[in-house]
Amino acid sequence: MRVLITGIGGFVGSRLARHLLDGGDQVSGTYINSLAAIDGADLHEADLLDRAALEGAVEAANPDVIVHLAGLAQIGEAWKGDRMPDYFWVNVVGTENILAAAAGRKVVIASSADVYGLVPEAEQPIPESRPISPRSPYGLTKAAAERLAFAHGNAVVARSFNMIGPGQSSGFVLPDFAKQLAGIARDADPVMRVGNLSARRDFVHVDDGAAAYRLLAAKGEPGTAYNIASGRAFSIDEILRRLMDIAGVSARVEVDPEKFRAVDLSLLQGDAGRLRALGWQPLRSLDDALSELWRSLPEP
Amino acid sequence: MRVLITGIGGFVGSRLARHLLDGGDQVSGTYINSLAAIDGADLHEADLLDRAALEGAVEAANPDVIVHLAGLAQIGEAWKGDRMPDYFWVNVVGTENILAAAAGRKVVIASSADVYGLVPEAEQPIPESRPISPRSPYGLTKAAAERLAFAHGNAVVARSFNMIGPGQSSGFVLPDFAKQLAGIARDADPVMRVGNLSARRDFVHVDDGAAAYRLLAAKGEPGTAYNIASGRAFSIDEILRRLMDIAGVSARVEVDPEKFRAVDLSLLQGDAGRLRALGWQPLRSLDDALSELWRSLPEP
Repeated sequence: MRVLITGIGGFVGSRLARHLLDGGDQVSGTYINSLAAIDGADLHEADLLDRAALEGAVEAANPDVIVHLAGLAQIGEAWKGDRMPDYFWVNVVGTENILAAAAGRKVVIASSADVYGLVPEAEQPIPESRPISPRSPYGLTKAAAERLAFAHGNAVVARSFNMIGPGQSSGFVLPDFAKQLAGIARDADPVMRVGNLSARRDFVHVDDGAAAYRLLAAKGEPGTAYNIASGRAFSIDEILRRLMDIAGVSARVEVDPEKFRAVDLSLLQGDAGRLRALGWQPLRSLDDALSELWRSLPEP
Repeated sequence: MRVLITGIGGFVGSRLARHLLDGGDQVSGTYINSLAAIDGADLHEADLLDRAALEGAVEAANPDVIVHLAGLAQIGEAWKGDRMPDYFWVNVVGTENILAAAAGRKVVIASSADVYGLVPEAEQPIPESRPISPRSPYGLTKAAAERLAFAHGNAVVARSFNMIGPGQSSGFVLPDFAKQLAGIARDADPVMRVGNLSARRDFVHVDDGAAAYRLLAAKGEPGTAYNIASGRAFSIDEILRRLMDIAGVSARVEVDPEKFRAVDLSLLQGDAGRLRALGWQPLRSLDDALSELWRSLPEP
């Protein structure tokens, strides 16, 4: 199939491009600023807020399906007044623009587990049938984007839990941990500063996530939401200890209340039953993701 | 004309009903919980989240136009994690539901000046042509509702600045001031606890606001946003002093940092040029609104 990926240079987009090309699909993508060439893919510079550029990219690529990954994704950042307008424009109006530019073509849009909000532990893993209940400005923007997608008529909603692996930008918890550990491996000060370690999250290897997006592009039912989730949860504390083991670096951990978020959800664990019914299953372990992340860091 | 008002029992809805009935229009409205009869108006109990009930109300009323006022409107409340989901559901999904129930009929939806966010003082009064830039969760919900309205094709967006007058519920700044002053008039402790007094706002008497909604119902251009604003701004401090004069009550004012909001905009002043071009102008003064508010309080 012919697939256009928005945000093809991003963490998930770049892995999805690789995955599609390996499977024989035709790939094109949009990016902003600059991007190194991707062998076999057509690239189009197009900002989500530039509807004409998006239409041009869609016309040039003439895709069977668009996978809309571009967006702003740092939950903590979106709480800040000076960042909130960008989250609104990029995540809400940007989604509206890509839906319009799609001109009736199928679109898979990347939403987030954050739309579920605070769910009692006894009711987790969370199925997609649960009404969403966003409790953060980021969650509000994703929830609004979902409503626009459902109104569009030919869109599939992917609710992604925590994707991890090599290539995630700093500002997310695992790249930040890895970077701090790499610093500790180089010099003397063995102190890590961390936020809330007790939160438990459902982690998915980015390549399993890419496979999920490909499956949704091919077989996802329009008007339907699909969780991308492993069904298991690990505390941030557990993840940090595993990462230290893999890195062979030990550190003294200091909890920094500054790094806590205004609202943090103690557990987010997803039920990916709908995606599994399409034939998806996660093939890579948490340790795979952590060691690939660690090995991907630049040598000191 | 036949007008259906959502939230007909509310602060603006009840005044709009009166205004329309006085002008010879046919009025019906939706409410939740309970509502005393309104002479001459047909009332329908219909929650915004109950699409079937909304459709039933629209079918029964068969309006030429729907004025959608129902919603949650306390900017400070929406910052709280446990309240944010309600703001999403009522303000975003509720608007989606009324637009769907309208089945192509014209809808005027109540948005808010809060969607403009932080605007440099030199660029105020704010015209509607200014791109919105919401900096609060409440603003995000209203901005998302606007996008749904514009996508609908037959909706007019009203961006309301601060409506004041008798009948506003507690939790808003002026009813809270008035209630505290009434308490002070009754007993000895002459202390008022207030939040940020330096913020300046554009106040519109609720009856002028009702006239604006009627005009938009009759003549508002679908796909267009209209500010409902006086074009003048007063500090909360100034308003409080005027209210004390009107009440004949003086109080010692204590600023309580607990009452400050996470993000507060120092000035919000609107340019209602588009509404004035339709023939609207505010007919009532700030002091009118304050004295009507004061006189509306229950006798001690």
